[in-house]
Amino acid sequence: MRVLILGGAGMVGRKLVGRLIADGLSAGTISELILHDVVAAAKPEASFPVTGLVGNLADPDEARKLAKLKPDIIFHLAAIVSGEAEQNFVKGWDINARGTWWFLEALREETEASEQAYCPKLVFTSSIAVFGAPFPDKITDEFLTAPQTSYGAQKAMTELLVNDYSRKGFIDGVSIRLPTICVRPGKPNLAASSFFSGIIREPLNGQEAILPVPDTVRHWHASPRSAVGFLVHAANMDTSALGARRALNMPGVSCTVAEQIDALRVIAGSDAVKLIRREPNDAIMNIVKTWAQDFAPERALALGFSAETSFDQIIKIYISEEQPGS
Amino acid sequence: MRVLILGGAGMVGRKLVGRLIADGLSAGTISELILHDVVAAAKPEASFPVTGLVGNLADPDEARKLAKLKPDIIFHLAAIVSGEAEQNFVKGWDINARGTWWFLEALREETEASEQAYCPKLVFTSSIAVFGAPFPDKITDEFLTAPQTSYGAQKAMTELLVNDYSRKGFIDGVSIRLPTICVRPGKPNLAASSFFSGIIREPLNGQEAILPVPDTVRHWHASPRSAVGFLVHAANMDTSALGARRALNMPGVSCTVAEQIDALRVIAGSDAVKLIRREPNDAIMNIVKTWAQDFAPERALALGFSAETSFDQIIKIYISEEQPGS
Repeated sequence: MRVLILGGAGMVGRKLVGRLIADGLSAGTISELILHDVVAAAKPEASFPVTGLVGNLADPDEARKLAKLKPDIIFHLAAIVSGEAEQNFVKGWDINARGTWWFLEALREETEASEQAYCPKLVFTSSIAVFGAPFPDKITDEFLTAPQTSYGAQKAMTELLVNDYSRKGFIDGVSIRLPTICVRPGKPNLAASSFFSGIIREPLNGQEAILPVPDTVRHWHASPRSAVGFLVHAANMDTSALGARRALNMPGVSCTVAEQIDALRVIAGSDAVKLIRREPNDAIMNIVKTWAQDFAPERALALGFSAETSFDQIIKIYISEEQPGS
Repeated sequence: MRVLILGGAGMVGRKLVGRLIADGLSAGTISELILHDVVAAAKPEASFPVTGLVGNLADPDEARKLAKLKPDIIFHLAAIVSGEAEQNFVKGWDINARGTWWFLEALREETEASEQAYCPKLVFTSSIAVFGAPFPDKITDEFLTAPQTSYGAQKAMTELLVNDYSRKGFIDGVSIRLPTICVRPGKPNLAASSFFSGIIREPLNGQEAILPVPDTVRHWHASPRSAVGFLVHAANMDTSALGARRALNMPGVSCTVAEQIDALRVIAGSDAVKLIRREPNDAIMNIVKTWAQDFAPERALALGFSAETSFDQIIKIYISEEQPGS
């Protein structure tokens, strides 16, 4: 099987590559792994060929070029993050929505032109940003998608496309609504959710972290390890179990910022916690307050998706993956 | 105020024109009415100028031309109907989704380029086809949009765009999810819902009607008069009452085909009912079975939208509007 990762140079993309090299896919033997991104992805050692491609998915010619490779499994992780999509309306819609649409159109053309049956599996990384306040205490699988950010609207729109292109047999798609991924390694990014990782990661690295929202903010988290697990499980699963609804809320941990900080204190001590500096930021708070806080992801749990069950597990995964010597 | 109707030559468009000429809009005095469609709209007598334009909204140049007219209020009724969108995937997505997107982009460009503040009110006719089975007994205002037809997906996608372009201040939009409009005058069309009108209209006109689904099928109806009332009410309303969710389920009448036929019998007698011929059609049934059956449209009712409360009222409206001599 030829596997294509769109957004293969990003954080989740890199960890997904590692998992695929280590464990493969139960859906079939990987014959080639193609990493596509706007910047060159690191090329790891693997028992199968790994190809790196650089280009912009929002370019229809690029979409067509990728579709012509006829990948059997596609992980679509490429996106402008939420903060940038909110600041740059045109760029966000262009890349997060229109670019994916062109790519789906290119896949449809391949499917229709193919002499041999061709219907690629597509695992699309959606987001809990498809939901908007006011919320019930726990968001169920039947709660409406009423996004209140451009990023959320772009993800919700792509889910509709993935569903309809799948219903028509052009692709075999599934949309995975990721919780906020925490603790992200590396540096802060433009995602409005970046601080949820920063207030754990920076103190663990002896650095100061900015907390732009009140301690009472509740949110929905899963580790990068769980995120990769969701994507691999989605690629391996038989989508007939999904019926007509191919977007799934993933499991995760619901906790407040105060609870995140408590978990940090238990694991790394009070000196680490003292590195968190409160600096309220209305622009970030205005985005974050539209986000979901807690879920009852019954369909995903029944389909075998799993995540952490407490925030201290999430911190320990960060330490074991990113600070293995500590 | 300059008013633009996209799809002005269609059935609802014509009735809306009549209502605007008769009653105006409480939102302001109409200075000009522009009717746009792929075919020429009939030009009625009015106390203000009425302009007819012919063109295809899916053409970006056409969208830009219309936006440059700077309409103050836009009724967007233009669409490929459900049956045709299901048969012709490319055409449906092109006209029902991409065409509207180009038009919103053209409006955004006008808004941004304008020296004087410009933010047109846009009333978008969405549909209960944004919902897909399985359903609760009554669909609430918080039920998910999981369409199971291309037409429904295209309407749901446009709702997302209308919401996000409104949130950013490029337009002041509201999406009106129309029930199935019944009794439609004229001839059957390619909409899969066409028979819901046909089994009433044809017998009232002494003609045979085909019923392609079982009598037990339950569905959600409103008259053309109510549909026009929804659109006018939406154009007149202050959208700040909508908050962040600008798509509304409209009120209507929930009844089975058997109840429709009972109402016809009471009004037009058993001879009329005998003109209904049962001819099961799996293609139509496969679409209809994915449709909503009953609603609790609490938000719309609280916002002052109203419709019929029984199916015999719906039949009587047809007779009074289309058979005034009978």
